[in-house]
Amino acid sequence: MNAEDINDFFADRDQLDMADYLELEYYLECIGDIETALAHFCSEQSTAQWRRVGFDEDFRKLYGAKVLSWQVLEELAELSYPVEQAEVGKIHACRVTVAHPHRNFGPKLPNLITAVCGEGTFFTPGIPLVKLLDISFPDEYLAGFEGPKFGIEGIRDMLGAYNRPIFFGVVKPNIGLQPEHFAEIAYQSWLGGLDVAKDDEMLADVPWSTIGRRSELLGKARLDAEKQTGDKKIYLSNITDEIDKMVEQHDIAVANGANALLINTFPVGLSAVRMLRKHTKVPLIGHFPFIAAFARLEKYGVHTKVITKLQRLAGLDAIIMPGFGNRMMTPEQEVRENVEVCLGEMGSFKRSLPVPGGSDSALTLETVCRKVGSVDFGFVPGRGIFGHPMGPKAGASSIRQAWEAIEKGVSLDAYAETHPELRVMLDK
Amino acid sequence: MNAEDINDFFADRDQLDMADYLELEYYLECIGDIETALAHFCSEQSTAQWRRVGFDEDFRKLYGAKVLSWQVLEELAELSYPVEQAEVGKIHACRVTVAHPHRNFGPKLPNLITAVCGEGTFFTPGIPLVKLLDISFPDEYLAGFEGPKFGIEGIRDMLGAYNRPIFFGVVKPNIGLQPEHFAEIAYQSWLGGLDVAKDDEMLADVPWSTIGRRSELLGKARLDAEKQTGDKKIYLSNITDEIDKMVEQHDIAVANGANALLINTFPVGLSAVRMLRKHTKVPLIGHFPFIAAFARLEKYGVHTKVITKLQRLAGLDAIIMPGFGNRMMTPEQEVRENVEVCLGEMGSFKRSLPVPGGSDSALTLETVCRKVGSVDFGFVPGRGIFGHPMGPKAGASSIRQAWEAIEKGVSLDAYAETHPELRVMLDK
Repeated sequence: MNAEDINDFFADRDQLDMADYLELEYYLECIGDIETALAHFCSEQSTAQWRRVGFDEDFRKLYGAKVLSWQVLEELAELSYPVEQAEVGKIHACRVTVAHPHRNFGPKLPNLITAVCGEGTFFTPGIPLVKLLDISFPDEYLAGFEGPKFGIEGIRDMLGAYNRPIFFGVVKPNIGLQPEHFAEIAYQSWLGGLDVAKDDEMLADVPWSTIGRRSELLGKARLDAEKQTGDKKIYLSNITDEIDKMVEQHDIAVANGANALLINTFPVGLSAVRMLRKHTKVPLIGHFPFIAAFARLEKYGVHTKVITKLQRLAGLDAIIMPGFGNRMMTPEQEVRENVEVCLGEMGSFKRSLPVPGGSDSALTLETVCRKVGSVDFGFVPGRGIFGHPMGPKAGASSIRQAWEAIEKGVSLDAYAETHPELRVMLDK
Repeated sequence: MNAEDINDFFADRDQLDMADYLELEYYLECIGDIETALAHFCSEQSTAQWRRVGFDEDFRKLYGAKVLSWQVLEELAELSYPVEQAEVGKIHACRVTVAHPHRNFGPKLPNLITAVCGEGTFFTPGIPLVKLLDISFPDEYLAGFEGPKFGIEGIRDMLGAYNRPIFFGVVKPNIGLQPEHFAEIAYQSWLGGLDVAKDDEMLADVPWSTIGRRSELLGKARLDAEKQTGDKKIYLSNITDEIDKMVEQHDIAVANGANALLINTFPVGLSAVRMLRKHTKVPLIGHFPFIAAFARLEKYGVHTKVITKLQRLAGLDAIIMPGFGNRMMTPEQEVRENVEVCLGEMGSFKRSLPVPGGSDSALTLETVCRKVGSVDFGFVPGRGIFGHPMGPKAGASSIRQAWEAIEKGVSLDAYAETHPELRVMLDK
């Protein structure tokens, strides 16, 4: 590209009608001349060849991505992660804001992903390392989507549970339990105080525990638990499956009494979530398998904040995400940002319930609550409930006792004096 | 875990019925005691809690993943890529083979992905860096899938093109062209000798170029080109869209004369490909946006070989992949392995056509052919044809002339003496 061509891939915000553009924040490691690399970066993700041979035309005006601003973070002696590539020159770590015209693809999730983290983004000469850090949508673009159908308020209304976290539990053993035993364990955990007993993300429809049989038993157990406790309960059934089976699985599970559905977002694809959002009669809760494969490293891939936004856009009512504590290998600030993406303003969308998870128990509830900064979250232990030495009912009780202690402003130790289920967790 | 519990996550191959297991190869960076970390790794991706409290049972026998073998590659002074995590201890780079029981999920792509590169795999304490290097399926598992419907032979039969590569071209300008101009350019390229004129992976169904209008014009242009040349031609239409629209887009495009369909595999999800495989009347060709986000780095994520296998499993007749040359930032050996995954034996599946791509032109054909090692590949230039100074017909001719030179064993330079279209490319 010559200097004029390069220049045409840069623009000031006030030169563009920003209603027509997404704003993309990227971390890039550029080799050689930075402005040349950035022009190529915009070209590759939009109009790589912007005129026909022999015609005087320029498709960049309407269809070109443009650099709005950029800054050099630092010069590097070598790439942060080695990549086999062709360019030579000085290496600069840069932060770049790109305006990308959404008329190139429209309000469609697969085409959006293709544009902002597809071939163009990851195969620009001179930019071997890329991380998509953030994405912002004008309201005009968001209007093409539906967002969550129920949202936090919908889930709270179902449960009659306000001014406190929502208490989930992942039934364990996660793999191998007969449906009858699974139902008994879930029932006990509801009696102990859980709001939501859930299938593990790895347990779906298998011959030894079909969705049909499991949801039938769990649907009944849920009604029994509601009668027994006087509280509303949720059975969260994992209908992750081939996408042409998911609507049918929804129908079976919901008819049997499952009243929320778990979907492994990236294994099925964001678009499958959106499809189910149109059909569903109950809240949809997303789980995070596969996301770490492209979101863990600081300087490559796609930031979890982008992923969480896309999940809310696709219509998830609750989003299970890697939570606090080094166990989940996610910086604390990043978890906070993901919580904020669920709870903050986004067009006219309902709020999604953030569910930061990972090896939780009665002992971690206070910390999670403090770090989230509100009660608008889901708490999702597994072994912390179902591995409780006194059994799953006691396990669930220990969580509620921890919450009572927090509400009363009493230390867990003091509260445990009269609450043996909590005591056992403290002694473990 | 105690020593006995750890030991139960290791097994010899002859202790297991390998028809029940997938074999997974991982690169892992383990912190602290290696065997403990590996036992946790298997536990987290299968039966994290393998018995109910108070019961004498062990779900690991049927449902546990097991380490078959492992070796230390080297001791490292620090993690290859920094990750915020909790463990302390010596760091070892290891290569590990895991047997994972497919009864845990069955022949379903989203559940397979959840098991082999999901939460368990990426959130094992003491293993912050993971790359899934390879996956092998027993025939018993493959029998649950369909594989490609047409395969290489089906595509060759459609075109009547044997004993040579299949010549694709990505119509450029990729974004912004009116359908009428798009059709004219494709027509010219077919006259010049292309087999397949294709939509760019970023161009799908947009108001300024709908699938309906574009496929109508291109379907007609294809028939005209077939009459004009006496050769069969393919228009490869990109139906990447929200997944509940793709069957309809298939029907529209195929009725209008598109005779192969492009799908951006990971943006729609592998399962959407499999759904379409059941329905399609024409070959399905996969494109690679988003894959680099989790497959580029040597020591983290998922190897492209795994991704190619999954695409063949899902039923793609041709797989466009990052090809040779540093421009595509993929080691040559890795491209070769991906070609081999398309062409090698895999249950009773048809072979997929490998299409290694990236900034190709008449000048790169010989190299690609030599590196692939056979004529069973697709060649897919974009600007190398549609940016040709003499226009798209000449651009396509230059590719065919390059192939003629290779077949005759003549140098491009010598052949160009009587072939001006090739001459121009050499002079460029």
